[in-house]
Amino acid sequence: MTTAPWRDPALPAAARVDDLLARMTLEEKTAQLYGVWVGAATDGDGVAPLQREMTSEYDWDELITRGLGQLTRSFGTAPVDPELGAQALARAQRRIAAAGRFGIPAVAHEECLAGFTAWGATAYPVPLAWGASFDPGLVEEMARHIGADLRAVGVHQGLAPVLDVVRDPRWGRVEETIGEDPYLVGTIGAAYVRGLESAGVVATLKHFAGYASSVGARNLAPVRAGVREFADVVLPPFEMALREGGARSVMAAYNETDGVPASADPGLLTQLLREEWQFTGTVVADYFAIGFLETLHRVAGSPAQAAHAALEAGIDVELPTLKCYGKPLVEAVRAGEIPEALVDRAARRVLLQKAELGLLDEDWSPEPTGRIDLDSTANRALARQLAEESVVLLDNPDGLLPLTPDARIAVVGPRAADALAMLGCYSFPSHVGTHHPEVPMGIEIPTVLESLRAELPDAKVTFAEGCDVSDPDTSGFEEAVARAAEADVCVAVLGDRAGLFGRGTSGEGCDVADLQLPGVQADLLDSLISTGVPVVLVLLTGRPYALGRWHGRLGAVVQAFFPGEEGGPAVAGVLAGRVNPSGRLPVSVPHAPGGQPWTYLQPPLGLADEVSSLDPTPLYPFGHGRSYTTFAWEPAESRELEIDTDGSYDLTVTVRNTGDRTGTEVVQLYLHDPVASVTRPDVRLIAYQRLELAPGEASRVTFHFHADLSAFTDRSGRRVVEPGVLELRLGVSSAEVRHTTRVTLTGAVRVVGAERRLRCEVGLGE
Amino acid sequence: MTTAPWRDPALPAAARVDDLLARMTLEEKTAQLYGVWVGAATDGDGVAPLQREMTSEYDWDELITRGLGQLTRSFGTAPVDPELGAQALARAQRRIAAAGRFGIPAVAHEECLAGFTAWGATAYPVPLAWGASFDPGLVEEMARHIGADLRAVGVHQGLAPVLDVVRDPRWGRVEETIGEDPYLVGTIGAAYVRGLESAGVVATLKHFAGYASSVGARNLAPVRAGVREFADVVLPPFEMALREGGARSVMAAYNETDGVPASADPGLLTQLLREEWQFTGTVVADYFAIGFLETLHRVAGSPAQAAHAALEAGIDVELPTLKCYGKPLVEAVRAGEIPEALVDRAARRVLLQKAELGLLDEDWSPEPTGRIDLDSTANRALARQLAEESVVLLDNPDGLLPLTPDARIAVVGPRAADALAMLGCYSFPSHVGTHHPEVPMGIEIPTVLESLRAELPDAKVTFAEGCDVSDPDTSGFEEAVARAAEADVCVAVLGDRAGLFGRGTSGEGCDVADLQLPGVQADLLDSLISTGVPVVLVLLTGRPYALGRWHGRLGAVVQAFFPGEEGGPAVAGVLAGRVNPSGRLPVSVPHAPGGQPWTYLQPPLGLADEVSSLDPTPLYPFGHGRSYTTFAWEPAESRELEIDTDGSYDLTVTVRNTGDRTGTEVVQLYLHDPVASVTRPDVRLIAYQRLELAPGEASRVTFHFHADLSAFTDRSGRRVVEPGVLELRLGVSSAEVRHTTRVTLTGAVRVVGAERRLRCEVGLGE
Repeated sequence: MTTAPWRDPALPAAARVDDLLARMTLEEKTAQLYGVWVGAATDGDGVAPLQREMTSEYDWDELITRGLGQLTRSFGTAPVDPELGAQALARAQRRIAAAGRFGIPAVAHEECLAGFTAWGATAYPVPLAWGASFDPGLVEEMARHIGADLRAVGVHQGLAPVLDVVRDPRWGRVEETIGEDPYLVGTIGAAYVRGLESAGVVATLKHFAGYASSVGARNLAPVRAGVREFADVVLPPFEMALREGGARSVMAAYNETDGVPASADPGLLTQLLREEWQFTGTVVADYFAIGFLETLHRVAGSPAQAAHAALEAGIDVELPTLKCYGKPLVEAVRAGEIPEALVDRAARRVLLQKAELGLLDEDWSPEPTGRIDLDSTANRALARQLAEESVVLLDNPDGLLPLTPDARIAVVGPRAADALAMLGCYSFPSHVGTHHPEVPMGIEIPTVLESLRAELPDAKVTFAEGCDVSDPDTSGFEEAVARAAEADVCVAVLGDRAGLFGRGTSGEGCDVADLQLPGVQADLLDSLISTGVPVVLVLLTGRPYALGRWHGRLGAVVQAFFPGEEGGPAVAGVLAGRVNPSGRLPVSVPHAPGGQPWTYLQPPLGLADEVSSLDPTPLYPFGHGRSYTTFAWEPAESRELEIDTDGSYDLTVTVRNTGDRTGTEVVQLYLHDPVASVTRPDVRLIAYQRLELAPGEASRVTFHFHADLSAFTDRSGRRVVEPGVLELRLGVSSAEVRHTTRVTLTGAVRVVGAERRLRCEVGLGE
Repeated sequence: MTTAPWRDPALPAAARVDDLLARMTLEEKTAQLYGVWVGAATDGDGVAPLQREMTSEYDWDELITRGLGQLTRSFGTAPVDPELGAQALARAQRRIAAAGRFGIPAVAHEECLAGFTAWGATAYPVPLAWGASFDPGLVEEMARHIGADLRAVGVHQGLAPVLDVVRDPRWGRVEETIGEDPYLVGTIGAAYVRGLESAGVVATLKHFAGYASSVGARNLAPVRAGVREFADVVLPPFEMALREGGARSVMAAYNETDGVPASADPGLLTQLLREEWQFTGTVVADYFAIGFLETLHRVAGSPAQAAHAALEAGIDVELPTLKCYGKPLVEAVRAGEIPEALVDRAARRVLLQKAELGLLDEDWSPEPTGRIDLDSTANRALARQLAEESVVLLDNPDGLLPLTPDARIAVVGPRAADALAMLGCYSFPSHVGTHHPEVPMGIEIPTVLESLRAELPDAKVTFAEGCDVSDPDTSGFEEAVARAAEADVCVAVLGDRAGLFGRGTSGEGCDVADLQLPGVQADLLDSLISTGVPVVLVLLTGRPYALGRWHGRLGAVVQAFFPGEEGGPAVAGVLAGRVNPSGRLPVSVPHAPGGQPWTYLQPPLGLADEVSSLDPTPLYPFGHGRSYTTFAWEPAESRELEIDTDGSYDLTVTVRNTGDRTGTEVVQLYLHDPVASVTRPDVRLIAYQRLELAPGEASRVTFHFHADLSAFTDRSGRRVVEPGVLELRLGVSSAEVRHTTRVTLTGAVRVVGAERRLRCEVGLGE
């Protein structure tokens, strides 16, 4: 018996796939183009809204006789023991392989936004906390561990990272993003991708593209944006994560931009992604998004038309349903309404990825190998380090922090003693666990209260909840105020409850009308301050909140963005002084709750005063964060220079720790372009570097600035470097400049293409 | 002595101008390209911010030896007696003519947003009230009177109408707009233009374009918008006002859209406006906007570069300064940096307009003729009628209105007894008068309190202010509550104080963070309601405010948008029942203060529920308004039909007054396009008609629907009519449909150009 060419691992993958496609029926090819969500099909309860009407009825045993493209969330749908889950997944894969003519298993995908969304898996800090760490290396290491855990249980593809750039902080999914700057999102996002892919897991860039810009910050609402904003703010992180991270999958976004749904946009999914960026992986649909082309966008009149629009645009895989790419697609191809070549194009991409993953090989085995521990000691150590690096000390005017070891401390607030306060909406306990209150959480999550007691064993720590996160009941204020009044210091731990679709104050579908703290927490804080006892505000949130109301009235302000299972010890470590805070804001913290949207990426008119009664200047700017030590910046030189529009320049600064304890400075490089052919942001981040320094220690950092980093999209849509003056501003935040170098670019306007430098390389101690 | 050809009125204007240009020096040509603001140059106080630094120093006597393009606001800068002002303007014109070699006077321009912005001139209702009237005929008549008054005092050009479509109701200038629907703005705006131009005054369409879409509703902030939103929402009113109104001037907007400032955009000001729309008039700069290209937009490095960018884009006249088009332009042309042909192009347009206006004729005379009365009886009657037609009865659930003639009425609130409560920020008393408190207001403006007492002489009317519009002081609540408690009904008159740049709660530069009523007025209203006495809420505002907090708790709600000098009697007339309310909302009234921006023009995703915790459904939808009588709608037919993509169909409905008093119904026709190649608004207005009917009277109205009205901008940027099903929905508001006709368009996709039908013609009683 001869082996068919497609089974021959010695042949090039493309040849194997061509052979396979030639053997497949139309039904078998389309079967590779959808995934199904087994748990959800019979359940229907709320992980994704509208899923009931969007999930097709099917007979599983009959379905898999044609093969199956993807399997959705065996672990992310209900609590399952990881070992048993891995065995169940392997059984399902064996059944799929056995049922079809070719014995090809499905690609198993899972969510892994802030760690594997599975029962018992490590809950890492959320992406917004990664942004606050300004530490791509650590994020890469975390993602490597996430990838290894996914692989260990038989999962091939992770639906992360989210590369949406924050455009309106009211949006519920801000917690899932890395921040409001495309360079920060791109560098951290690419690091995550490198980590996940290094473990052999397919990373999925989402949501491509524009999703975070929904008008009024309402989830899924239309996006008002022009082509330049899209090219210069929305798209760069995706380009970086593809070029520098090597991501092998992209998820088309739900939203429409200026009337065109991303999921039906060939300009985005084919011309840009495939032809210009040379992407060769798979494009998957966001859940139910192809059906939404008919039901929500109304750019298609039937599931078949939706399938046609999506397939033509470039979506290869419908998830997690076969509502459009199942029977409607087959029938439309048979009727001559959809070219079979579109099916072949998508199937080829899916099968090439399966070939890469070894799923076409005869020796493929779904059995898990080795011991499965989704929350290993190594994982927890990473979760801890990332949490510690991500805590931002916003203010500490009188040095109230660190706390005195033997102080009388009143810990107050609805987030102090709740383990879920540490988690974003895609961590398993908040994403799925809330539907299964009878099941234990599966991971240990010390609260801030517990952790602070552990950090400061000699302190007298009392606690009162004060109020709920969102409930209007103020009956607990009295006790909270009493606890505060009898203490030396009050630690108010306030913030969000992550949840899905209205079940939380932050998270997918939990958009807010303005940026005031949820519920009656603002009033609780006022009451605590009125005691006269100094108050440390600790925020555990998924988005920035307006803090102007308390400016000058707080002893200290600590901002943590859902810091994960080790977030309690991290926050307590900062409060107690064991950890010297080093996080920096990945989003601006505003004065006032209204007047949104606003981010720091403003052209001059977005900053102009005198012309409006609204002053959008943030209370704490992008990049801001304090330390318990002090740093001196000693730039190597201060001069004006000229380089060519294709030239480069090494910008060097030496930073010295001038305090008495080890600490980390985050050196940030911003670009200011005084005159350009289109308006430009007043400043934007183009490089950054964390520097951990012992007392008295100095370190030299060199930013290899290339003129490409000043490129932007001009009126004709070309990306250009324009001659003229630039300012390279070294700062400790976007608003606090320590040193400016004026560089004049000489020569002609230079058009740069897909080959341009996206990143400013950094050298240390050179 | 022979007359020069340019003086010969028998020659075509173009020939005269060519001759004149050939005789002029560069300085003389550029002198036609700017205007100066004589009062403001020495004053500098706040009508426009930043004006100090933007106004050039010059020597008037020397300046006018070269001629002068425009004279800015002789009347709109300080209080002047109209007769004396007209004589002063004539003197200035004679001096200008005498000083130059050619004896050509300046074009005198003034603001006339809601009437001539001059001391003693009629203050008509603001444009948002015109929108509420749904009565283009009456607006045209008003504009004809405004134009006649301008002409009478020697003014040639009026800087109105504002055709910006509301995109965010938080914006301060919403009061200056006609509403949130482009068809309503276009039809009413074109009517205004027809009226003004019929008096021989040049109408100036502004702000071209996109200005109302500034992000976060901050005045001048950048605009996030795509090309389709621009083409289908922002631009149509301008196109309509040019084609149907015959406007002879356009003002370039301050804002940038997607990085490109309107004032430096040849695509907008030349390719679209001149080449596609065939506009032949003048394009003027918004005040100081050319300088802003350097100082605020930073797309120019010097005043000369700003002049170059603006001139090249297509701005013919700098207002009201010569900072860029003065010396910098001359020097740059001399240096070969700016082609003189650009100067000639602009000067030709300016001089052609002067020729049209008779300003090149030898017999030109600046002397005012006839008696000047800027607030005539005829004016006041028009102001009254428009005010009465614009008052919107939002709610009257139990028929509390009209008030009982002998009731005990407590009138409460900071807007009840203030004449300025009737006026928007461009009416002279609020625009300029506030800087001259020693000068009497110049026109009679009865307050709501005075007017109600006059309407109901048998009622016992008491009054308490309760609080200020914006001051936080609540010490007046007690008396207000006491007055309410002892009355049969409480009329709470709340709202805005119009002002400029932070001096008001509505008006230019008075943008708000959210849509809660200003100051402590919301608390005052709560206090009044808590008395148990039924409360009628009367709003005198420049924008919609969130009213969900009081839904179901008010006896009635009356919304007036700054109704002008006759607004008091109009509002009181509605309260007393003399006037049967007939206004309809030109903007949506939201439930909650946050979550903006939102307007009713939403594609399906902007309306989707389940996907966000924010529900944007308005409390009172666009087009909503109640009456004291009832109407029955009797559509002539109810069938499905097919027409060609170039076809038309007459849709007929008969409306009968089934109540016992005369009243006006506003029949509204909305288009719903179920499936299209890009997402479409769920509904949009395509026709409307006011019908005044005596008790028992019926009237038949026929809408001549043509397929052109379904046209939209497709993915390729073409404007197309697509085949497929449409729903024509006849309704009493955008949310309340009375009758639907399904029309199937057959045939091929049809590309429509600048010749397409913009308006749905309406027939009555056919």
